[in-house]
Amino acid sequence: MNVKAANAEALRRLTAAEPVLIDCVPASEAFGLEPQTVLHAGPPIEWTAMSPPVQGAIVGALRYEGWAPSEAAAIDLAARGGLRFEPCHHRGAVGPMAGIVTGSMPVFVILNRAFGNRAYATINEGLGRVLRYGANDENVLARLAWLRDEVGPLLGRALRRKSLDLRPIMAQAVRMGDEMHQRNIAASALLARALFPSLAREANGPALTRFVDFLGDHDQFFLNLAMAAAKAALDPLVGIAGSTVVTTMARNGTEFGIRVAGCGGRWFTAPVNMPQGLYFPGFGPEDANPDMGDSAIVETVGLGGMAMATSPAVARFVGAGGLAEAIRITEEMREITLGEHPHFRIPTQDDRGTPVGIDVRRVVATGITPLINTGIAGRKIGVGQVGAGFVRAPLGCFTAALEALAADPA
Amino acid sequence: MNVKAANAEALRRLTAAEPVLIDCVPASEAFGLEPQTVLHAGPPIEWTAMSPPVQGAIVGALRYEGWAPSEAAAIDLAARGGLRFEPCHHRGAVGPMAGIVTGSMPVFVILNRAFGNRAYATINEGLGRVLRYGANDENVLARLAWLRDEVGPLLGRALRRKSLDLRPIMAQAVRMGDEMHQRNIAASALLARALFPSLAREANGPALTRFVDFLGDHDQFFLNLAMAAAKAALDPLVGIAGSTVVTTMARNGTEFGIRVAGCGGRWFTAPVNMPQGLYFPGFGPEDANPDMGDSAIVETVGLGGMAMATSPAVARFVGAGGLAEAIRITEEMREITLGEHPHFRIPTQDDRGTPVGIDVRRVVATGITPLINTGIAGRKIGVGQVGAGFVRAPLGCFTAALEALAADPA
Repeated sequence: MNVKAANAEALRRLTAAEPVLIDCVPASEAFGLEPQTVLHAGPPIEWTAMSPPVQGAIVGALRYEGWAPSEAAAIDLAARGGLRFEPCHHRGAVGPMAGIVTGSMPVFVILNRAFGNRAYATINEGLGRVLRYGANDENVLARLAWLRDEVGPLLGRALRRKSLDLRPIMAQAVRMGDEMHQRNIAASALLARALFPSLAREANGPALTRFVDFLGDHDQFFLNLAMAAAKAALDPLVGIAGSTVVTTMARNGTEFGIRVAGCGGRWFTAPVNMPQGLYFPGFGPEDANPDMGDSAIVETVGLGGMAMATSPAVARFVGAGGLAEAIRITEEMREITLGEHPHFRIPTQDDRGTPVGIDVRRVVATGITPLINTGIAGRKIGVGQVGAGFVRAPLGCFTAALEALAADPA
Repeated sequence: MNVKAANAEALRRLTAAEPVLIDCVPASEAFGLEPQTVLHAGPPIEWTAMSPPVQGAIVGALRYEGWAPSEAAAIDLAARGGLRFEPCHHRGAVGPMAGIVTGSMPVFVILNRAFGNRAYATINEGLGRVLRYGANDENVLARLAWLRDEVGPLLGRALRRKSLDLRPIMAQAVRMGDEMHQRNIAASALLARALFPSLAREANGPALTRFVDFLGDHDQFFLNLAMAAAKAALDPLVGIAGSTVVTTMARNGTEFGIRVAGCGGRWFTAPVNMPQGLYFPGFGPEDANPDMGDSAIVETVGLGGMAMATSPAVARFVGAGGLAEAIRITEEMREITLGEHPHFRIPTQDDRGTPVGIDVRRVVATGITPLINTGIAGRKIGVGQVGAGFVRAPLGCFTAALEALAADPA
C-alpha cells in the first residue's frame, strides 16, 4: 500500500470510531494489571530518570495500594527495582499528567464499537492537590480510596445498566466551546445529566449524594473519558503499513514520545519542552515541571489545541487570546493534518471539522509541531498543579519517525 | 429626569439584576392566583378573540383543574363568561406559547436579589404534544398532574434546601452557544447538574428516577427559567419616568403587545405576525398559528434573537445560516438597543456583550424591529408544535408607544 492509500485508510479508521462508555472496573480486572506493576504516562522510563511529580505520584500510589507503609519505604522499593514500570499506552490505557495506574484503581472501559477494541482511563480526581500532579498527602489517598471503594463500583453498575455513546456528547461539547483538554465543562455537564438516571437507580443516600456533589462542580471530569475515547479511536491505526499518521503523543515528564501508524508500537522520543502559560497565585515558571501526561492523545484525535477555534476562552492561555488568535492556531494545525473531523465541528468556522490526522511528513516539511493545551505541574513533590498553558511537541520526535519510515518503506 | 438619564437608569437596573431560583410552589400559593382565573401569554384578550391553540390549552387547563368535566363543558364555561382571563404579565409571571397558568400549577419562584422583586414561570413540559402548544389529550393532562403532584413539590424542597443563582448559569450558557430561546441545551445541562445534589437528598426511588429521566434529555427545560429570570430583571424598570426602554414584548396569538418603562403598565399592541421557519415533517406554513407566547421576554433582556451571534446553529432557522448571518443579526439588533450586557458575552464577538435595552425611539427611527426566535404552534386545536423559526415584532406597537411618550413627556 502506498503512503497516500495507507494514510487514507488511517484517516478513515480514526474518524469512523464509535467510542462507547460501557463499564468501570479495577485495572487488575479490566486488563489484568499485575501486582507491583505501575503504569505511567508517556514513553518508557525508569525510576531514576523520572521527574519529581511523577515520583511523588508513584509514592502516593504505593502507599494507597499498601505496597509501602511510608514515603521512605516507597522510595526504597522503587529505587531498588522492586517495581515494574510500564507506559499506560502499552496496556490500552491513558493517564493524565503523571498518569499513574495500579491494579486496584477503577478504570473506565471504552469500547470502540466500530472496531471492537477497548481503551481505559482512571476516574478524574478533581482539581488542585491530586495524585496526577504529584500530590500524595492523606487527603489525596483518602480520595483515591473513596473512588476505589464507592465510586468505581457505583459507576460500574450504572454503566452496565446503560452504556453511554461518547461521540454525540463529544460532538455536542465541541459545538459548545470545549476543546476537551483545558475545557471540558460542556462535556462534563452533558455526561453528568446522562449518567444521573442510572446512578439514581443504583445508589441512594450518602453514596449517591457524595458522588453527585463531586460531579456537581467538577468541570474537568470528562477529560479522562475524552482521552480514553481518543485512545480507542487511534489504536486501530497501529500497524497500517506505510502510514505516516501519528497514533500517539505522550510525555513522561522527561521525554516526549510519539508513535506512528506505519511503525507499529515503536516510540520516537525527544526531550520534553517546558509549557508556557498562566500560573496560579504564588507560582511562576521557576516552579514548573517540564511537560507531562498522556493527555496529548486528545490533540492526536483532533481536539485540544487542534480545536482551539472552538474555545476562544482557552486561547487566552496561549497569549493574545480572542477569537482571531484561536482560529489562527487551528488554521496552523491544518497545515500538518490530513483531514477534517466529520463529527467534531467548529461553529466559529461555519461547522468546518477540526484538523485531524497529524502527518509526520507535513510536520517535518513545515517545521510546525502540534500545539498541545496542558496543565502545568509543580516541579517539587507534593505541590500539585501550579498553572495551565500550552506546549509545543518537539520536532525531533517527528524527524526521527520520518527517518525510520524512509528507511523501511512499506 | 430627561430621557437620557432615565434610559441610563433603566439600563443600569436591567443589567444589575441577580435572578436566583429559590422555590417552586403552586401558583395559588406563589402569588394568590384565584379559582376560575386563567392566566395567558401576551396582552389582554377575551375568549372569542383567542386563536385555536390558546383556546385548546385553556380547555386542557380547565379539565386538568376539574373545573369542567369535558371539552364541551370547558368551551361552554369559557364562552359564557364563567372565567376571568388575565395576562401572566399582570401577576409577575410569564408563560411560553399559550402561556396558560391556573392555580394548582407549580411555578418556579425567581427572586431578583438586587431589587427584591419576584417573578414566576411554570415548569417546562417538554417537546411535542404539550399544553403550551394547544394539545390537551389525556397524556398532556397526566403529565400536568405529575408535575403538580410529584415534580413541583420535589423541586420546591430541593430549592428551599439550596437556591440556585441563575446569572452565572446563563452567562456560562451564552458562552456555550445558547441564545436561550431556541437553544437551551447548555443551560439545561448545567442546571440539571447543579440541581441533582439537592434532588438526591429530597427524593429516592421512582419519584427521583422519573424526574431525572425527564431532565436527562430535556434540552429546553431551562427556557421557562430564562423567561422568569428575564421578567425578574425587567420589572424594576416599570415606571421610570421618561424612559423609552421596552420592558415587555409578548404575544397572545392574536396581538403583539409591548410595554415601555416610561408608560408603566400600559400595553401598546398591533396584529401579530406569522413566524417564518422550518416545519416538522408533514407540516407547512398553512398549518401555522400566528406568533404567540411571553417568551419574547428573553429578547427583551438581551438574549434570543438579540444574541444570535452566539448560536450559529439557531441562525439556520432564519435563512442562510452560518456564523456571518448570525453575527449580522446581532449587529442589526445593536442598532435598536442602548447598551451591551455586561454578563451575557458572545465568544464569536471577542466577548462583546449582547445588545440589550430596546429603545422605542431607535426602533421607530430605523424601522428595524426586534427579531424574535420562536416555536411555531399548529393553528388547529390539539396539534401541538409544527415547527420553529423567527418572527419580527410589528412596528405599530413601537410607533404607538413613542406617540404616547411624546404626548406625556416626563
